[in-house]
Amino acid sequence: MTGRRRPTSIVMRALAGETLARPPLWLMRQAGRYLPEYRELRRGARDFLDLCFSPKRAAEATLQPIRRFGLDAAILFSDILVVPWALGRKVEYREGEGPVVETVRERAAVESLPHDGVTMRLAPVYETVQRVTAMLPAGTALIGFAGAPWTVATYMVEGGSSRDFAATKRWSLRDPEGFGVLIGRLVTATIDHLSAQIEAGADAVQLFDSWAGVLDENSFRRWVIEPTKRITAALAERHPDVPIIGFPRGAGLMYRAYVDETGITAIGLDSMVPRDVAQRTLQCSVPVQGNLDPFVLLVGSALQSEVEAILASFGGGPFVFNLGHGVLPDTPIDHVAQLVELVRRGP
Amino acid sequence: MTGRRRPTSIVMRALAGETLARPPLWLMRQAGRYLPEYRELRRGARDFLDLCFSPKRAAEATLQPIRRFGLDAAILFSDILVVPWALGRKVEYREGEGPVVETVRERAAVESLPHDGVTMRLAPVYETVQRVTAMLPAGTALIGFAGAPWTVATYMVEGGSSRDFAATKRWSLRDPEGFGVLIGRLVTATIDHLSAQIEAGADAVQLFDSWAGVLDENSFRRWVIEPTKRITAALAERHPDVPIIGFPRGAGLMYRAYVDETGITAIGLDSMVPRDVAQRTLQCSVPVQGNLDPFVLLVGSALQSEVEAILASFGGGPFVFNLGHGVLPDTPIDHVAQLVELVRRGP
Repeated sequence: MTGRRRPTSIVMRALAGETLARPPLWLMRQAGRYLPEYRELRRGARDFLDLCFSPKRAAEATLQPIRRFGLDAAILFSDILVVPWALGRKVEYREGEGPVVETVRERAAVESLPHDGVTMRLAPVYETVQRVTAMLPAGTALIGFAGAPWTVATYMVEGGSSRDFAATKRWSLRDPEGFGVLIGRLVTATIDHLSAQIEAGADAVQLFDSWAGVLDENSFRRWVIEPTKRITAALAERHPDVPIIGFPRGAGLMYRAYVDETGITAIGLDSMVPRDVAQRTLQCSVPVQGNLDPFVLLVGSALQSEVEAILASFGGGPFVFNLGHGVLPDTPIDHVAQLVELVRRGP
Repeated sequence: MTGRRRPTSIVMRALAGETLARPPLWLMRQAGRYLPEYRELRRGARDFLDLCFSPKRAAEATLQPIRRFGLDAAILFSDILVVPWALGRKVEYREGEGPVVETVRERAAVESLPHDGVTMRLAPVYETVQRVTAMLPAGTALIGFAGAPWTVATYMVEGGSSRDFAATKRWSLRDPEGFGVLIGRLVTATIDHLSAQIEAGADAVQLFDSWAGVLDENSFRRWVIEPTKRITAALAERHPDVPIIGFPRGAGLMYRAYVDETGITAIGLDSMVPRDVAQRTLQCSVPVQGNLDPFVLLVGSALQSEVEAILASFGGGPFVFNLGHGVLPDTPIDHVAQLVELVRRGP
């Protein structure tokens, strides 16, 4: 609806393939528990989902890190599990535990999920996007996001977080067609959810495939690359100018195939990816984003040398500075301020 | 002391670089809970460590899968946490939970660990090796093992299993010298422990670095590659003919550097490694071992096609058939028998 509002944001220029003298910077989970103003906001909400679905509060959470640090992009405050919730599954966040999701473990259960209404149920998220869009400073991009189908499926099948993904792997191997129906439903819901965020004003979107790294090659192709390809193809048709950042965390030796085959615009690198390999084999194809270890930011002592090493590796091509995973809740705010200063100063 | 007793074992020939018409086969955690005879043996022991330290029972556990399936190598029945135990830390295995290890979180605690006596305290393990050696069929190799220093350190610092390795990462970044003292002590203990297994009759040894995949490149070089290099150098001096299989699970894009720089004889591949890449970039340097997904073995339906794909990828070079991780406790015995049959039949 709003069109591209901030064509000059340096995040958008880097995602379009431009090499910048000073790279843009944002941080995964920059809106979150390490900020006292976020913890205050969180206390005012009934629970985590209530916060995600209150446009005023969620917009405030999105904007807090922008006000404090002047980062180059805001990331929508939301959660990857709003999609299973919109598909009618119960989703709860218990204090001090991970999320608890009502499970789906067989084809019949998938077929009983509602076939439409996802974007209607998620209307408050798009209202958040509109609010943020109206309040963001010029030159600051807004990034929308969704969980990728494989990762969201693991939460739905396991009923929450997992160490070994046993139920998901068993189902996907025993009955790939049935599991494929779940993945297909998530592909459709993800396309709709990301499109609606774009229509509400998101400048770019990121697909979080946090558990992509636990699959063997065949399964990675079938449950990560193929669904991602369908999402990027549909979005390219509906919104040809909106960049899609793919983040297949832990993909290791499959990063290359993911970049070559999915049709994503830019690639998010986790902290384990060796930078010389990424520079040589990935940045030649697409802009890269990453990959400071969140523990380096938390501890602080090696921050300067790591930032310099990252700028030296990726500064010569299209690049968005970021972490390799989300900001950790115990991260001192001073370290984040120091990081912003170091990246601004440049190499 | 016994010298190399079984020079014609096909496992040893593959580890020496020979390409075999029918590859040798053994399975990580082939001695374990999926076998009813193991569960029976386990019931007779006070606890898991008691089983590890009873030479008669541990030898029996080691031999059970050989009797049942006629695999080409036995893997010593023991545990990677016997080393922290021998360094004076309490180690407990609680039913249905992971192991609980008395923590070490600062340099002073490391310096209070005993400086010798590791192999004296672990004498029952070497007695197990001697017993197994005397009872193994000709042509069946015995593989000894230890946890690699990084992986063992994570258990000692976290106090057990972990999802994020927060305490270990924080310590290693905040005080790399202090953490390095712990790693150094583990390097020494590991060299002594593996040497003693070799002197008792082990034909080859494997270093399990199960948590190698959570480190960024700098940390991987410092805490995985460097300690492994010191271990292989010391073992090469004491036991020049004994192959060392390195298994840096999850190393992804760092597999190549690990193979090129550590001095290991052969490389264990996890299930996530794409086989064409491993064949092209790793098997040209060293024999490879792996990498069937344990869930494929557990579920069974894709077993034949996966075995055929593995044989097609790796059968043209030095290769030991194995899983990409240990046998899962719920694995049906029939599937293991079927796997043995498929590998025997060959491509």
